[in-house]
Amino acid sequence: MTEISSERLRDRFDRFNEIGATERGGVNRPTLSDANKRARDRLVEWFQDAGLEVTVDEVGNIFGRRAGRNDDLAPVLVGSHVDSQYNGGRYDGVIGVLGGLEIVETLNDAGVETERPIEVVSWSNEEGVRFQPDMLGSGVFAGKFDPEFARSLEDKEGKRFGEELERIGYRGDAPCEPRELHSYFELHVEQGPKLADAGLSVGVVEGVYGFVWFDVTFSGSADHAGPTPMHLRHDALVATSDVVEAVRRIAGTEGDDLVGTVGSLDVSPNSINVIPETVDFTVDFRSYDDETVDRAADRVREEIEHAAAREDVEASHEVIMRIESQAFDDGCIETVAAAADDVGADYTRLVSGAGHDASYLNGFCPTAMVFVPSVGGVSHTEDEYTEWTDVVTGTEVLHRAVLEKANEPEVDETEVDR
Amino acid sequence: MTEISSERLRDRFDRFNEIGATERGGVNRPTLSDANKRARDRLVEWFQDAGLEVTVDEVGNIFGRRAGRNDDLAPVLVGSHVDSQYNGGRYDGVIGVLGGLEIVETLNDAGVETERPIEVVSWSNEEGVRFQPDMLGSGVFAGKFDPEFARSLEDKEGKRFGEELERIGYRGDAPCEPRELHSYFELHVEQGPKLADAGLSVGVVEGVYGFVWFDVTFSGSADHAGPTPMHLRHDALVATSDVVEAVRRIAGTEGDDLVGTVGSLDVSPNSINVIPETVDFTVDFRSYDDETVDRAADRVREEIEHAAAREDVEASHEVIMRIESQAFDDGCIETVAAAADDVGADYTRLVSGAGHDASYLNGFCPTAMVFVPSVGGVSHTEDEYTEWTDVVTGTEVLHRAVLEKANEPEVDETEVDR
Repeated sequence: MTEISSERLRDRFDRFNEIGATERGGVNRPTLSDANKRARDRLVEWFQDAGLEVTVDEVGNIFGRRAGRNDDLAPVLVGSHVDSQYNGGRYDGVIGVLGGLEIVETLNDAGVETERPIEVVSWSNEEGVRFQPDMLGSGVFAGKFDPEFARSLEDKEGKRFGEELERIGYRGDAPCEPRELHSYFELHVEQGPKLADAGLSVGVVEGVYGFVWFDVTFSGSADHAGPTPMHLRHDALVATSDVVEAVRRIAGTEGDDLVGTVGSLDVSPNSINVIPETVDFTVDFRSYDDETVDRAADRVREEIEHAAAREDVEASHEVIMRIESQAFDDGCIETVAAAADDVGADYTRLVSGAGHDASYLNGFCPTAMVFVPSVGGVSHTEDEYTEWTDVVTGTEVLHRAVLEKANEPEVDETEVDR
Repeated sequence: MTEISSERLRDRFDRFNEIGATERGGVNRPTLSDANKRARDRLVEWFQDAGLEVTVDEVGNIFGRRAGRNDDLAPVLVGSHVDSQYNGGRYDGVIGVLGGLEIVETLNDAGVETERPIEVVSWSNEEGVRFQPDMLGSGVFAGKFDPEFARSLEDKEGKRFGEELERIGYRGDAPCEPRELHSYFELHVEQGPKLADAGLSVGVVEGVYGFVWFDVTFSGSADHAGPTPMHLRHDALVATSDVVEAVRRIAGTEGDDLVGTVGSLDVSPNSINVIPETVDFTVDFRSYDDETVDRAADRVREEIEHAAAREDVEASHEVIMRIESQAFDDGCIETVAAAADDVGADYTRLVSGAGHDASYLNGFCPTAMVFVPSVGGVSHTEDEYTEWTDVVTGTEVLHRAVLEKANEPEVDETEVDR
């Protein structure tokens, strides 16, 4: 069979990442920014050049469709996202979308027709840095969120997702709603160190960690840092520091794979000579074992109450997100593994610590993912890096998996092994 | 002797605090804001109504001079400041300036002439919430800072102190520089709980705590909170939390009066699912014993290094301010104590945990302060409160102390007991 073209993919990768390029070698293309618009424009142009039929839906997801021999069959969907973190990396998301396009070009060049249609997708607002929640476009598509909810989201400046989407010209006419898909594949950087540390080129992803997110607030007293004796203080930051340490301790004592992070923290009034009155912060726990996540959540609730009692401050906390771990479709996983064997890739099976659009797709169609290494485990920064040979190998694995599935004949779709 | 008028002072206090009044009962008059301009305008008008000769200097300090019988003698200076914290209290600073004006009105009404001139001062930018450093106007007056340095300071929006001063019309013609003063007195709220807890009306302030301020930065790695195993993390916030706890521990184990605070803390990138890469924070230690302050500073430096080593992050720290403790002038202290005895006030002697304009004045003329209680020890918030009878008692003590000093005959000023 014809293999994908490393040169064509590399050329596209480099030209795509000129858009929003940063001085330190990353890209800055947060959702619905001007740079994100230019990236979308280029993608649509390339989709059209490759003969894909382009559809933009009401939350800005972009689909490019290549007809199948039996065009009424449910399509195989392949893709990822092209929005970035603020000053993020060049690989995250991009290789999954350009990889899907490269598959189409390879099939076109070889004159290969597939039984089923193949669609390449670029999901809207995967990163969630400007509008929360993240994985928004795929979440709406999967029926987790309402399109109107998505359009009503506001960024920190009060700009609405819907208005910004219209501003950049990507509020499409197509409804964003679940429709019949045969399967979904996504190529992505691992964002962790396992593949790179083991010297492997590819990861066959069997599932995604479950996670819980807390918003926590401690409220104490904003007294003057000089004349207020220590025993009269109600310092919201001292209580918070107890919890930061507790999160580290819980992650170290509950389950092998549990990770815990306090990533966001805001102090008020945040003045050098005023005792912190309020601190708002977040807690993130993840594990592939949902019972572990729940135990960690219970323990941190206790620690929050204990910290509040010790410092005599008020505590409030709520779970703002709880997503159960995802086990991908056995059939899709084995298709990816067989493709990796076929290519002769050095690979392992693993689960993803990060959430992906594939997590939502897994909810209603057979899904799996292909990982390529993140050198040093680094992602979400300009230093993100993957060896190009690994990108090529991962894309070739994706190519063979998609081709295999796109040639699956018509079956009673309800019987697909989930 | 004629006593000050509680009614007149109260009327002025209430009318003054209409300017920048907040819904929750405080005032919002940060330095060089429009509300601060209106407060200055009203003060100048009242100074002129009281027959004071008004001078505004090049950094915006406002002086109102009442001639003495021997007008060439060095004047007694009395005052404080009228700028506020953002959404601060109504008493902080204001009672010291309006108290000085009330003394002048009382002397005017009684037709009392003093040997020396009396000047009432409102210092520019005492709070330091918009432009750092704080106590700026008195610092320039005392020769600690250059006027050009003061005018070059920028707020967070990049507006310069000098330009904002001109904008509100308070860049005066008079040079701001040390000149001969006989003595300086300042009435202020305690900002701590001692007087209120002891049920006293007045504090005779013998000095001000020394303090040290650190800026600290930890720099780690901004990896994804999901796929990054705990043992590979370099989390700047975990290291910071160690130091927050260490500051609390140091304050609890070094010297009776030592207080320690982490008041300001900024996390980057400050995202729920990204491990904190950098944290910038401050440390504030204060004690009346400078050796205690220095020991605390040494210990926190060690703790910063240890925390950085444990988490394998980079640490940088620097002392951005170190002011030694101030012992006020024995003569002025005893004058205040005698005035408090004379008035029959319930008082104690204490030292101030907070810095004041008096700290800088103490550098070159005999100085002392009068405190009145802060109920609950609360200050720098809208909840700041002092019983009115205590404000009146404190002002009467100030009145008698100033009158006593203003009638001291000419002496060889170099012989004043410092």
